[in-house]
Amino acid sequence: MTENAALTPDLQAAGWSASDDGTAITKTFQFRGFRDAMAWMARAAFEAEHLNHHPEWSNVYNRVEVRLTTHDTGGLTGKDISLAERMEKIAGRTLAK
Amino acid sequence: MTENAALTPDLQAAGWSASDDGTAITKTFQFRGFRDAMAWMARAAFEAEHLNHHPEWSNVYNRVEVRLTTHDTGGLTGKDISLAERMEKIAGRTLAK
Amino acid sequence: MTENAALTPDLQAAGWSASDDGTAITKTFQFRGFRDAMAWMARAAFEAEHLNHHPEWSNVYNRVEVRLTTHDTGGLTGKDISLAERMEKIAGRTLAK
Amino acid sequence: MTENAALTPDLQAAGWSASDDGTAITKTFQFRGFRDAMAWMARAAFEAEHLNHHPEWSNVYNRVEVRLTTHDTGGLTGKDISLAERMEKIAGRTLAK
Repeated sequence: MTENAALTPDLQAAGWSASDDGTAITKTFQFRGFRDAMAWMARAAFEAEHLNHHPEWSNVYNRVEVRLTTHDTGGLTGKDISLAERMEKIAGRTLAK
Repeated sequence: MTENAALTPDLQAAGWSASDDGTAITKTFQFRGFRDAMAWMARAAFEAEHLNHHPEWSNVYNRVEVRLTTHDTGGLTGKDISLAERMEKIAGRTLAK
Repeated sequence: MTENAALTPDLQAAGWSASDDGTAITKTFQFRGFRDAMAWMARAAFEAEHLNHHPEWSNVYNRVEVRLTTHDTGGLTGKDISLAERMEKIAGRTLAK
Repeated sequence: MTENAALTPDLQAAGWSASDDGTAITKTFQFRGFRDAMAWMARAAFEAEHLNHHPEWSNVYNRVEVRLTTHDTGGLTGKDISLAERMEKIAGRTLAK
C-alpha cells in the first residue's frame, strides 16, 4: 500500500488529474448545493479514517476540491488511489440501497 | 403548514405508513451500512433545520427508523409531509450532480 | 474485548445504567439543541466505526438515548464499556484543543 | 447585515485576521485530530445554513483554515462577523450541556 502508484484510467475518466511531478492527484467534485457537499464530506471522512489516510480538501458552497498525496513517502501510493476510488463510489451512488 | 395533513399516495408507495390514530407517520429506511446511514442522517438534518421541524429517529447499524408528527398540534401537518418527501428525495438520489 | 464486562463506577456516575438482566447499558444524553446533538452523533460515529461496534441510539431534538450491548455474545462486553467511555469523553470536552 | 463591517477585538484576540484589503477574514482552527475537525465542520455547517452564508474552508487532518467574505458586496459584512463568532463559540465549548 505504500509503494508508488499511478492514476488509473478509470479515475482519469472520472476527472482526476495528476500533478506535474506525479506526487499528487486532484479533483474538484460538484454537488447540488452546500448540504450535499457536506454530507459527502461526512461520508468520505469515514473512508479516510478506515484507510487511515486523510485528504487535503477545501469546500466553497457546492464544490469540494480534493488533493491526495502520501506525505510519508512524498509521492502517490495505493492509499491515494483507494481513497479516490471510494470517493468516486460514494459520490455516484444513492445512500439508500 | 400547520393544518392537518394526510399521508400522500407517493409516500405510502415509498413505504411510509400512518399510525392507527393518524397523528404520525413512520418509515424504516435501509442503507448499505452504518456509514451511509450516518451520512443520510447528516444530510436529512439540514432539511429538518430548514423546516424547523425535527424527526424522532433511531439508528441501529444500517437502519434508521423515522417517526414524524407535529407536537404543537398533536397531529400530522404539512411539515411532516414536507420532511418525509425531502427524506425520500435525499435517500434516493446521488450526492454528486 | 468480547468477554463479559460490567458497568464501571465512572460510567454509573456519569448517568449510565445497566438493564435489569445486565446485558445492556443505557444513557440519555442532553445537548443544547438539535445541532449539537447531531454533531455529537457525527463525532461518536467515528468511535463506533473505530471499535467496529455500533450503538442503538435514538434522537428527539436535543436528546440522544443510547443503548449499548454486544449482539454476538448477547451480553455486555469491553467494547460496550469502551464506546460508552468514548461517548462521555466527546460529550464533555471542547472540539478545539 | 449586508453593510460593511470590521473585525472585532474579540475575534482578533481569538486569532482571526483581516486580509490586507480588509475584504475577508481568516483563521486556522486546530483540533485534536481529524475526527474533531470533521465534527466541528458538521456543527459549523448548520450555522452557515442558518445565516445563509457559507465559508471558504479547507481541511488537512486536524486543521481547518477558514476564510470569510461576502461575495455579493465584495467585502466584509455583518454576516461574516456573525459566522466567525458562531464558529468560535462552537469550537470553544462542550457539546453536552
